Amino acid sequence: MDEGVKALFEPRSVAVVGASRHPGKIGYEILNNLIEYGFPGKIYPINPKAEEILGLKVYPRLSEVPGTVDLVVVSVPARIVPDVIDEAGKVGAKAAVVIASGFKEVGNEELEEELVKRARKHGIRVLGPNVFGIVYAPSRLNASFGPTHVIPGSVAFITQSGALGIALMGMTIVERIGVSAIISIGNKADIDDADLLEYLGEDPRTRVILIYMEGVRDGRRFMEVAKEVTKKKPVIVIKAGKTEAGARAVASHTGSLAGNVKIYSTAFRQAGVIEAMTVEEAFDWARAFSYLPRYEDGKLVLVTNGGGAGVLSTDMLVSRGVRLSPPPKSLVEKVREYLPSFASLGNPIDVTGQISSEGFVRAVMDALNNDEVGAVLAIYCQTAVTDPMLIASKLVESVDLSGGLRKPLIVTMIGGEETYWAIQRLNKARIPAYPMPERAAAAMATVINYGRYVSRVRNLRNG
Amino acid sequence: MDEGVKALFEPRSVAVVGASRHPGKIGYEILNNLIEYGFPGKIYPINPKAEEILGLKVYPRLSEVPGTVDLVVVSVPARIVPDVIDEAGKVGAKAAVVIASGFKEVGNEELEEELVKRARKHGIRVLGPNVFGIVYAPSRLNASFGPTHVIPGSVAFITQSGALGIALMGMTIVERIGVSAIISIGNKADIDDADLLEYLGEDPRTRVILIYMEGVRDGRRFMEVAKEVTKKKPVIVIKAGKTEAGARAVASHTGSLAGNVKIYSTAFRQAGVIEAMTVEEAFDWARAFSYLPRYEDGKLVLVTNGGGAGVLSTDMLVSRGVRLSPPPKSLVEKVREYLPSFASLGNPIDVTGQISSEGFVRAVMDALNNDEVGAVLAIYCQTAVTDPMLIASKLVESVDLSGGLRKPLIVTMIGGEETYWAIQRLNKARIPAYPMPERAAAAMATVINYGRYVSRVRNLRNG
Repeated sequence: MDEGVKALFEPRSVAVVGASRHPGKIGYEILNNLIEYGFPGKIYPINPKAEEILGLKVYPRLSEVPGTVDLVVVSVPARIVPDVIDEAGKVGAKAAVVIASGFKEVGNEELEEELVKRARKHGIRVLGPNVFGIVYAPSRLNASFGPTHVIPGSVAFITQSGALGIALMGMTIVERIGVSAIISIGNKADIDDADLLEYLGEDPRTRVILIYMEGVRDGRRFMEVAKEVTKKKPVIVIKAGKTEAGARAVASHTGSLAGNVKIYSTAFRQAGVIEAMTVEEAFDWARAFSYLPRYEDGKLVLVTNGGGAGVLSTDMLVSRGVRLSPPPKSLVEKVREYLPSFASLGNPIDVTGQISSEGFVRAVMDALNNDEVGAVLAIYCQTAVTDPMLIASKLVESVDLSGGLRKPLIVTMIGGEETYWAIQRLNKARIPAYPMPERAAAAMATVINYGRYVSRVRNLRNG
Repeated sequence: MDEGVKALFEPRSVAVVGASRHPGKIGYEILNNLIEYGFPGKIYPINPKAEEILGLKVYPRLSEVPGTVDLVVVSVPARIVPDVIDEAGKVGAKAAVVIASGFKEVGNEELEEELVKRARKHGIRVLGPNVFGIVYAPSRLNASFGPTHVIPGSVAFITQSGALGIALMGMTIVERIGVSAIISIGNKADIDDADLLEYLGEDPRTRVILIYMEGVRDGRRFMEVAKEVTKKKPVIVIKAGKTEAGARAVASHTGSLAGNVKIYSTAFRQAGVIEAMTVEEAFDWARAFSYLPRYEDGKLVLVTNGGGAGVLSTDMLVSRGVRLSPPPKSLVEKVREYLPSFASLGNPIDVTGQISSEGFVRAVMDALNNDEVGAVLAIYCQTAVTDPMLIASKLVESVDLSGGLRKPLIVTMIGGEETYWAIQRLNKARIPAYPMPERAAAAMATVINYGRYVSRVRNLRNG
């Protein structure tokens, strides 16, 4: 394990160079987030013109800090960053987060090279420059100027875009997506995706890694590391700059080379990396992976009370390589006892729009508890004879009573306001739920395809 | 105009055969919806065993109704439906909505043929059987057992699926999508998509038509009618049964032949019909079309405060055939005056994450007011220095002050809870807004492509 990268995630002490007294200023917000998110180690604000900020003693410069400093967050004008790195070296810092912009992204490549040269001299690993910071929930570390309180969880999010990254950080809060880490990777002058993947791949608190990527510098190394990590946990990538015009926009944004799209897609597939085409897909899938056990084997069974929604889900699954076979005979015999005579007992099992809330949940649980079934997609359309919240509550209760999920279950609830609350209820209980049938089906396809990938690469290793 | 189809949308009087006293029963819910939604004409409940339901005098049979009956809603067991149609004929009904199921969809084709034969004899047009009813907001007609209060607006929604249709009817309420009509089309024994398209194409209250379709009986007629309608207003289709397995699911659902997917897609394209791949897309686009003026010509300009979100939007637009050219020089000169020096003045115009709320709105309005610009996509990432609700309010105010939208403007706001409220604010003011950049960009691509289609077919006609 690289000591510098480890210090980035698990520092014992943090200094903020450029700490500010003024709310709204980046140097204030970072300090405030560090304190408010409850970082348990020492925090040293550095500012030659202040004595105390937010109740903490301020030091005029890094070299005057009395203790050791593991991590230095640098929010000062670009031109003086290299000198700050020198000071950081003198106090034994192992890592620096360079918030400052004004480097390669505006054509100032020499300054960026100088920054890296100084850092290497002192053995300091650098995140950035041009980043909004890092959050690592297990260390209670929020050294960013994004939102203060993200929900702790198991999704690690690496973003090459600043404003989009901060915005999505806010989105995880509303969408109740628990995160282990959020890392703004910026210009990648030193630390790049592969370094972070290595750490997060080993991190027991991270179950799924999501990357917003415009380009990688060292594609070969990224793929090598990714190939190992994807054997253990899913890695989802949103690759921006998929079209020529998009690639030009990338160039004027972070100065990265977006590269040839097909090369990226092929490489991702070979390394077991899951490519999401939209932000919505990426977060939908991250949520599913973070809640669910891995798909092992067995049939996927669809249970629906709305034929049309069953068709749309089938279309989506099949278009993503998941074929449906008839449900197990033992399951058909079981549900036949209580379903309406005109129910369709294929796959999807159409329990009909006349089913009660209890009947719907019963069919879903019977499918889930069948030994030949490996995964269940429950597709619910709001009807006059059912209550979405009752279905959600009963489903949560039944899953709890059965000792929790031992195979993937994904739910879609389509309808009015009640379904929105029911979806929240399910997500809170870690049963992934979505308001659209195709989104749920795409998430299920991704979960199954990843489960198969892992089985395949493991069999190869053992075979 | 077909008299029967007209009576379906604009009846002066409605009878409900099979009206029930018991809440929860279909025959009660339909009657209740008719009353609650404020149907101004005469309503006649028919039930041999009741005297009064919901304050209305009940008649034992249709033939005893004292006045004329334009529309008959039939909710009785399938086997007696043909006799009810005979009675309807005697009182001069022009249309019937056959709610009852138990016809072709369960293999009972003879009964369905008998139903049609009797209806033809009396000159009655039939919607269904196997439907949840019809809503037509301009007539204050809700002859369905779906939700009572849909939001009046300009989207007409035709659905071949019952449970999914009712669920989506509920969704329009939460998503604040105003509807002119919701029609459950069921088995299409008589009235089919083409009949409804003909009516809705002429209907000044309907600006966009959305169809959930599993299959059409008379493909040629549908395409002929669609080709005429799409010259006047957009027609969006969700075609279910796109895969072989999906087609099998269709067969066991409504008994329709889903047919060859490619044939459908090609035919849709030739007729100017917009094919949506998911329910989410379909409703996203319907919302945009219902709010916006048609795209005529001129440049599409993207304004973003987040480079990454700009790249993702560019990718989506280009992948849907919309190319981006540099912004007009006059616009660049104008925004240069107040944007940060490191702002990127290409297309997208990246106003940078350091822009204020006012600055962002100003840039969007400058783009919108530029003569060479034909459409604007505003891409906002929530940052610490901006306030999503302030941006939404200022944007609504500025658009109002400029006399309303004269070209398409679509907004995406990415972030935490505040952005969700800001999106609601914009949608309420009829500026289409979405929480994901790709969804906004896909909606914009669809609006532009449709605008170009209309210009092309009109030029062909004039040329």
